[in-house]
Amino acid sequence: MDPDFGRLIRVELESNGVKVITGQAVQSIKRRERSLLVQTASGQTLIADMILVATGVKASNMLARTAGLALGVAGAIRVNRIMETNVPNILAAGDCAETWHSILKSNVYMPLGTTAHKQGRVAGENMVGGHREFQGSLGTQVVKVFNRIAAGTGLRDAQAVKAGFEPLTVGLTVLDRNTYYSEAKEMHICITGDRRTGRLLGAQIIGYRGSELAKRIDIIASAIFSNLQIENLCDLDLSYTPPLSSPWDPVQKAAMQWCTTLDTKA
Amino acid sequence: MDPDFGRLIRVELESNGVKVITGQAVQSIKRRERSLLVQTASGQTLIADMILVATGVKASNMLARTAGLALGVAGAIRVNRIMETNVPNILAAGDCAETWHSILKSNVYMPLGTTAHKQGRVAGENMVGGHREFQGSLGTQVVKVFNRIAAGTGLRDAQAVKAGFEPLTVGLTVLDRNTYYSEAKEMHICITGDRRTGRLLGAQIIGYRGSELAKRIDIIASAIFSNLQIENLCDLDLSYTPPLSSPWDPVQKAAMQWCTTLDTKA
Repeated sequence: MDPDFGRLIRVELESNGVKVITGQAVQSIKRRERSLLVQTASGQTLIADMILVATGVKASNMLARTAGLALGVAGAIRVNRIMETNVPNILAAGDCAETWHSILKSNVYMPLGTTAHKQGRVAGENMVGGHREFQGSLGTQVVKVFNRIAAGTGLRDAQAVKAGFEPLTVGLTVLDRNTYYSEAKEMHICITGDRRTGRLLGAQIIGYRGSELAKRIDIIASAIFSNLQIENLCDLDLSYTPPLSSPWDPVQKAAMQWCTTLDTKA
Repeated sequence: MDPDFGRLIRVELESNGVKVITGQAVQSIKRRERSLLVQTASGQTLIADMILVATGVKASNMLARTAGLALGVAGAIRVNRIMETNVPNILAAGDCAETWHSILKSNVYMPLGTTAHKQGRVAGENMVGGHREFQGSLGTQVVKVFNRIAAGTGLRDAQAVKAGFEPLTVGLTVLDRNTYYSEAKEMHICITGDRRTGRLLGAQIIGYRGSELAKRIDIIASAIFSNLQIENLCDLDLSYTPPLSSPWDPVQKAAMQWCTTLDTKA
């Protein structure tokens, strides 16, 4: 998440009674009677009933190493677009393998359930004589945090810079229904595109209506898949009826804002 | 709506106490005290407090005719892709004008709010010296009927035949969440594609969760915009988290079903 969006998630957590502490390493965890004592590097002591450690995913590569397979990014099994490893007749897919990123045009380590399903299908089909290529991932993700939903796809601004683009990222807060509609709720969208070409590179959305928000990120993911420009988002013939949306979908309003911002800065 | 889907809408209406009578022309409407008396051609008499007549939209073309503008489909003002009429410096947009259909590659009469907004933007920009082309409509629509939502985009099977395609339409009833999820609800999707080329031509979805259903039609509308094949829908990197979807989105499950059906019939 970009910092602005991260703050919104933090507010949601805190308003639900969660204490958020960031930037502090855990130095030790000790048991004291029925509790757990957490000591941080800065000297803070916290008491917990249960601790969940979520420090990222590591590819399980022991079997692969034993079999002599080459490893790639972050120790994941090196694969090509048809999910072949460097050893003939051994294919790999899922969280143990690398993932081809379709904007970066290179392999990354990005273990996601949706990607594992797609890679598994490709590997399976090729194992039985098919010829299918994995079309790549955009890192599309969605997460539900109490009543807030945050979703993203493609490159964030900093990633786009690193990948050699000249990104412009524009944020917009917009109602997800016509303003006269009592059920209208705020949605924050930020959209990233390349200044030189107008190409759509990524987006993040945060709001309250989960599944329609997620499906809006999917509209953007579909547009990136087809190498559309941000301007093209305004041309999409999206559905509309007052109880469900607005004549210009929030995604299109964000795209217009991006185009206007680019024109103003040019 | 295709007849199968029409039946589902009928059931929703009837289960909410609406009496549905189809295929009967209204012969006369008469006032009797505080009620209205409707006489049908088949001799049925109905009593009403209020009558809504919804018999389609007709282009309001009087001003245009007076100004000497050429009319096109269904009496709508004839326009080109930059929204020019046949008279220099007069542009037209919205329900009074024709709409370019991007699959049919010809003008149709299809007055929709979303289209009017897009055409108005194109006309406005061109009037002040811009050069923008209307990218066309797919007739994407969504309607809320009590708790059911029905949405569609692109060509229905019969329309596809008429347009010279060799359509295959495949329907699928699918849960919109993982089966273990208590909030999972049924969604009916039917998807139409060309047998020869695999090109995605259209889809209809009916179900209960309005806005996420509508946004799923929008994923398909975006895919049609980019001339994707049905097979490509399975490659889209769509978002997933258990409370909001399934690892293969219903749209992708329907696409797989379509491909399997084509293979089986081939």
